[in-house]
Amino acid sequence: MSLNSFGRLFRVTTWGESHGAAIGCVLDGVPPRLALNESDIQPYLDKRRPGRSRFVTQRKESDTVAILSGTFEGLTTGTPIALEIQNEDARSGDYDKNRDKFRPGHADYTYQAKYGIRDHRGGGRQSARETAMRVAAGAVARKILGPDIAIRGALVSLGEKEVDRARWDWAATEGNDFWCPDSEAVADWEAYLDEVRKAGSSVGAVIEIEAAGVPVGLGAPHYGKLDADLAAAMMSIHAVKAVEIGAGFAAARLSGEDNADEMRAGADGKPEFLSNNAGGILGGISTGQDIRLRFAVKPTSSILKPRKTVNLAGEDTEISTKGRHDPCVGIRAVPVGEAMMASVLADHLLLHRAQCG
Amino acid sequence: MSLNSFGRLFRVTTWGESHGAAIGCVLDGVPPRLALNESDIQPYLDKRRPGRSRFVTQRKESDTVAILSGTFEGLTTGTPIALEIQNEDARSGDYDKNRDKFRPGHADYTYQAKYGIRDHRGGGRQSARETAMRVAAGAVARKILGPDIAIRGALVSLGEKEVDRARWDWAATEGNDFWCPDSEAVADWEAYLDEVRKAGSSVGAVIEIEAAGVPVGLGAPHYGKLDADLAAAMMSIHAVKAVEIGAGFAAARLSGEDNADEMRAGADGKPEFLSNNAGGILGGISTGQDIRLRFAVKPTSSILKPRKTVNLAGEDTEISTKGRHDPCVGIRAVPVGEAMMASVLADHLLLHRAQCG
Amino acid sequence: MSLNSFGRLFRVTTWGESHGAAIGCVLDGVPPRLALNESDIQPYLDKRRPGRSRFVTQRKESDTVAILSGTFEGLTTGTPIALEIQNEDARSGDYDKNRDKFRPGHADYTYQAKYGIRDHRGGGRQSARETAMRVAAGAVARKILGPDIAIRGALVSLGEKEVDRARWDWAATEGNDFWCPDSEAVADWEAYLDEVRKAGSSVGAVIEIEAAGVPVGLGAPHYGKLDADLAAAMMSIHAVKAVEIGAGFAAARLSGEDNADEMRAGADGKPEFLSNNAGGILGGISTGQDIRLRFAVKPTSSILKPRKTVNLAGEDTEISTKGRHDPCVGIRAVPVGEAMMASVLADHLLLHRAQCG
Amino acid sequence: MSLNSFGRLFRVTTWGESHGAAIGCVLDGVPPRLALNESDIQPYLDKRRPGRSRFVTQRKESDTVAILSGTFEGLTTGTPIALEIQNEDARSGDYDKNRDKFRPGHADYTYQAKYGIRDHRGGGRQSARETAMRVAAGAVARKILGPDIAIRGALVSLGEKEVDRARWDWAATEGNDFWCPDSEAVADWEAYLDEVRKAGSSVGAVIEIEAAGVPVGLGAPHYGKLDADLAAAMMSIHAVKAVEIGAGFAAARLSGEDNADEMRAGADGKPEFLSNNAGGILGGISTGQDIRLRFAVKPTSSILKPRKTVNLAGEDTEISTKGRHDPCVGIRAVPVGEAMMASVLADHLLLHRAQCG
Repeated sequence: MSLNSFGRLFRVTTWGESHGAAIGCVLDGVPPRLALNESDIQPYLDKRRPGRSRFVTQRKESDTVAILSGTFEGLTTGTPIALEIQNEDARSGDYDKNRDKFRPGHADYTYQAKYGIRDHRGGGRQSARETAMRVAAGAVARKILGPDIAIRGALVSLGEKEVDRARWDWAATEGNDFWCPDSEAVADWEAYLDEVRKAGSSVGAVIEIEAAGVPVGLGAPHYGKLDADLAAAMMSIHAVKAVEIGAGFAAARLSGEDNADEMRAGADGKPEFLSNNAGGILGGISTGQDIRLRFAVKPTSSILKPRKTVNLAGEDTEISTKGRHDPCVGIRAVPVGEAMMASVLADHLLLHRAQCG
Repeated sequence: MSLNSFGRLFRVTTWGESHGAAIGCVLDGVPPRLALNESDIQPYLDKRRPGRSRFVTQRKESDTVAILSGTFEGLTTGTPIALEIQNEDARSGDYDKNRDKFRPGHADYTYQAKYGIRDHRGGGRQSARETAMRVAAGAVARKILGPDIAIRGALVSLGEKEVDRARWDWAATEGNDFWCPDSEAVADWEAYLDEVRKAGSSVGAVIEIEAAGVPVGLGAPHYGKLDADLAAAMMSIHAVKAVEIGAGFAAARLSGEDNADEMRAGADGKPEFLSNNAGGILGGISTGQDIRLRFAVKPTSSILKPRKTVNLAGEDTEISTKGRHDPCVGIRAVPVGEAMMASVLADHLLLHRAQCG
Repeated sequence: MSLNSFGRLFRVTTWGESHGAAIGCVLDGVPPRLALNESDIQPYLDKRRPGRSRFVTQRKESDTVAILSGTFEGLTTGTPIALEIQNEDARSGDYDKNRDKFRPGHADYTYQAKYGIRDHRGGGRQSARETAMRVAAGAVARKILGPDIAIRGALVSLGEKEVDRARWDWAATEGNDFWCPDSEAVADWEAYLDEVRKAGSSVGAVIEIEAAGVPVGLGAPHYGKLDADLAAAMMSIHAVKAVEIGAGFAAARLSGEDNADEMRAGADGKPEFLSNNAGGILGGISTGQDIRLRFAVKPTSSILKPRKTVNLAGEDTEISTKGRHDPCVGIRAVPVGEAMMASVLADHLLLHRAQCG
Repeated sequence: MSLNSFGRLFRVTTWGESHGAAIGCVLDGVPPRLALNESDIQPYLDKRRPGRSRFVTQRKESDTVAILSGTFEGLTTGTPIALEIQNEDARSGDYDKNRDKFRPGHADYTYQAKYGIRDHRGGGRQSARETAMRVAAGAVARKILGPDIAIRGALVSLGEKEVDRARWDWAATEGNDFWCPDSEAVADWEAYLDEVRKAGSSVGAVIEIEAAGVPVGLGAPHYGKLDADLAAAMMSIHAVKAVEIGAGFAAARLSGEDNADEMRAGADGKPEFLSNNAGGILGGISTGQDIRLRFAVKPTSSILKPRKTVNLAGEDTEISTKGRHDPCVGIRAVPVGEAMMASVLADHLLLHRAQCG
């Protein structure tokens, strides 16, 4: 019932603060005899790594992961896998000046009010560094899912800018700093975000995650629904404020006949759906279609522009955050969203196998 | 780890099918010595009851709840509370004709594919009747929360119709069949939904739920976040496809300075927020502001208009649903959303008390 | 996390009080398409039923179970199974005289101190009637385990009387009122317990449960150990004060060479163990040998002989319980212990399938 | 639902193998603002440390614990506490010779059969080194319990030797290598165990753990019973085969009038019990009396004497373990049992506060 854990059978527990010695996670329930080395995990961490481009935080972290348990001679053993990353560039001094101020949009005030204490350095436990362990867990989850399930993500909007879905090209996401699937939009996005960055401001983003190759039957009524678990998983990512699956909010405006995906007999005896408004999930159970969801990330709250706030003593003050922050924290949320999708699917794959053999 | 349970310390487990003998739930973890009788629960069930207006299903169910355990002389005892509602109007015959057809937009196909068997009568376990037990659980959750936390919901859009927020009046929600907070919109909504209903079609809706009086400090990093639990709770409701908290998707379009809610010293030493884009939650923990979220319900999938589908034998066929269905299932989702909010908050109230005293 | 639930994937939640309207349970996680009718459950309930012989309580209960959900046309559907038994002979009046007295050996005082309230009638939630639902759950668990796993139990001691293991005959257990495997001992036990009963006293018992045909590999390090789960399951039965597996306490007196079960190559490539001090479990995982455990049940605390106690007002008083109690509650614990064994094994069978395929 | 975790609200997850880089644990749910440094934990680890006397393994491990997260300036923050111990003396070479042989009494065969792979070095995950993290967790649990709850343990039998309870002196346990409360027995025990050790054999032990100062009301019906959780906690310790609470197995031989602890009005309005056969627990809830339990540890399975076994290829062979093993692994189980008692009580203290305020 740990509040810092997620998943039921593929169970992930994360720990660590932004400026502590290290961050880590424990993965329990991983099936035995899967090939697993650090090199299976590191590429995903590299996608999320600070300093990767000028559009993300310049904090210097190699984010090198070590597997401390749960494997033997390159194979998983079925026992808990402990992963760990040393923190390297923890300039706590940067934060001391604002130690007693509550940064608007951050969890400073809520942590202080809840716990009566907080590690103010770099956001402490609430730092987005925590998401590195989600990405690491997701890499192991992909091993459980196997090569037939493909998970990928893209930024579909950056502040006021949106992709043109007519130009959608998954391959393009690897060729720019935004995971943007619309290569023609990239130059404009770069100019836009440079401006935001130079203005000491920030913007939000919307991320789309797709899982292809998911078998029919994952999920369960009513509180173990695949979509309920995905919603929780995405909403638990730092700065996420909204999640929608398939047609999402737009479904509320459709008529019943336009929304419900019709079926025809498929070649292999399985139904073929004529549309995918459901986003690959009906009644909380995967349909075999692509699972597709979107989530919204709010703009980075740490900005240069001075903002009104109060301090620990309850007095009015102002704050301006000079740290090395992401002008759009949503960019690095793309590999995180992919990882959460992988982890939720891995968990449900095991759950389905348990009940239905 | 039951997939038909939710909550951690206020733990709800539901059971039952649309056309079985009864539906029920077990509530565990309820504090002792709370006054609780059936009359505390029934009014909430009456809000969700079939046949309440011409805009909801005409199935005849009194939905009379019985408390079978967990209370003594009108007080909770701290032991599990079993609630039960007898099914009264289960006309299974209505469904036999379509027994082997998969209704588009429903979970017929996914249940069949997952379990290799399904109770086809009225959707079986997947029926929206299950939400009656959510509403009953929510009524008990409100007892845990006490009178200072007020939870209420409203329909903010019905298909293509939207409320005018300038005319928002919570009191108005009780005066029409839609829980619409904009009384001037009601006549138009009635005409619109009558037309939809007569056309044998259906529409979706967006519901907004607000919780006022929630103390600061409920929730926890990182997978026990209040917003993650709320997202799962709402997404687990039948036909829900999207959830957003505070500014939600709109937050992705805001600048950092516009989004982060500034603070000023309040009269009682607590900060006063100058806006509520966060929807009352920062870092997964309540801020003390109103908690505000919205969720989208897709249009009822059971419609009169014939739709293409396949049957159990894998053959192409058509289906037209003649049951007594809601033209907009979103209407009855309002009390359900309120109940889920109450249950999540009750759970976190107990969790907070456990860890922080 | 419900405290009234057990099991992880085969999840049992019980509810109900001795003198409430009914008692029941919800079973979640049951695989689909298992044949299941009330007649699969009732025979096990009949073994535990009150009034079965003069050596158990004379309360008149038919303990007729109803399946309220989770099956369709005689097969499980994979959705929650709700079971219910109406209480028929709830003579609450019998208890009113002692309403405010704490019965020694019972949970009256601890319930009152914990919850500040208690349903005093027949022990309320703490009544051994709760074990009827354990037995019902166990019957369903046996369906999950299939016919190759055989679970049976016997009384190995009754108060000061012990079976002669040289005369052990499983078949004999069905032929007497004690589940005694030593038919020559029965007459002596009858005379002994009649004397105890007539004296208004009571005695305890030791029960042995065996599971044969359990495959190697069920269980897991370190807190999901099969023996840890069995210990909890047995200790959670009313009035149980001790559990031992295999050689149990006697193992502490053995030398390492005598205790560790040696192995020889078996006919089918699997090792054959030369002894079974381990009781079929090593490192928390089943070895494929018979699983064998024993647990001790204390003497019934409700006795005619007057005992010193205090009342709700904190005053000294005496109590003598005139109800219809078991002279040895351990007798009816035999089917309960079998049921708990079945439930734990079913849970671990599903867990094993989830992780190891 | 992690199988390598225990506790509900005070949640402990352990990881690591005997010959991996390190072992560790994550503690979630710890209340904030408790003073906590490594020096609060180390003394308990030192009690369990290898090489402490000639009667325990001579493996050279300083077992120095590091707190990697969850504290700030010497206080707990309410976020997960990660503890880690580097492995120092991992002579894997010692084990290679027996790599493919299944050691009798160990989990070698069951791990191999379950997972199809195992880390054979020093028992891998199944090594008693795992208990170091239990001891570390227990030290933090004691912080949650506060100074008024005192937990202590003693060896009550060593192989065939037993303490004389008439000479019981808790203070004596600190003055010998066995945690023996009977100082007159120590010389005899030393001679006895020296003989066992020199013979290349081993013996088992029985440990008694007592918790004083526990408030009335911890625990809950029916599967969250304090005694059920304690039974699981103790049985989950390596090599434990039996657990009993209060009078335990002996209770089965008592009459109802002798077993049920009578009560008299106490000075402070609380009842005073005239005996403690219940071991401080009635109906799964603490009575306020001392909680007292015993558990049996089997003799160390790794012995010099050659034993019959089979190997990975399924062939008959012999094995003789030349490692640096404990002649009585039960000795080091004393601090482990204390730690498990502390962890279970801490968990129930938080659970009780959650439900009953």
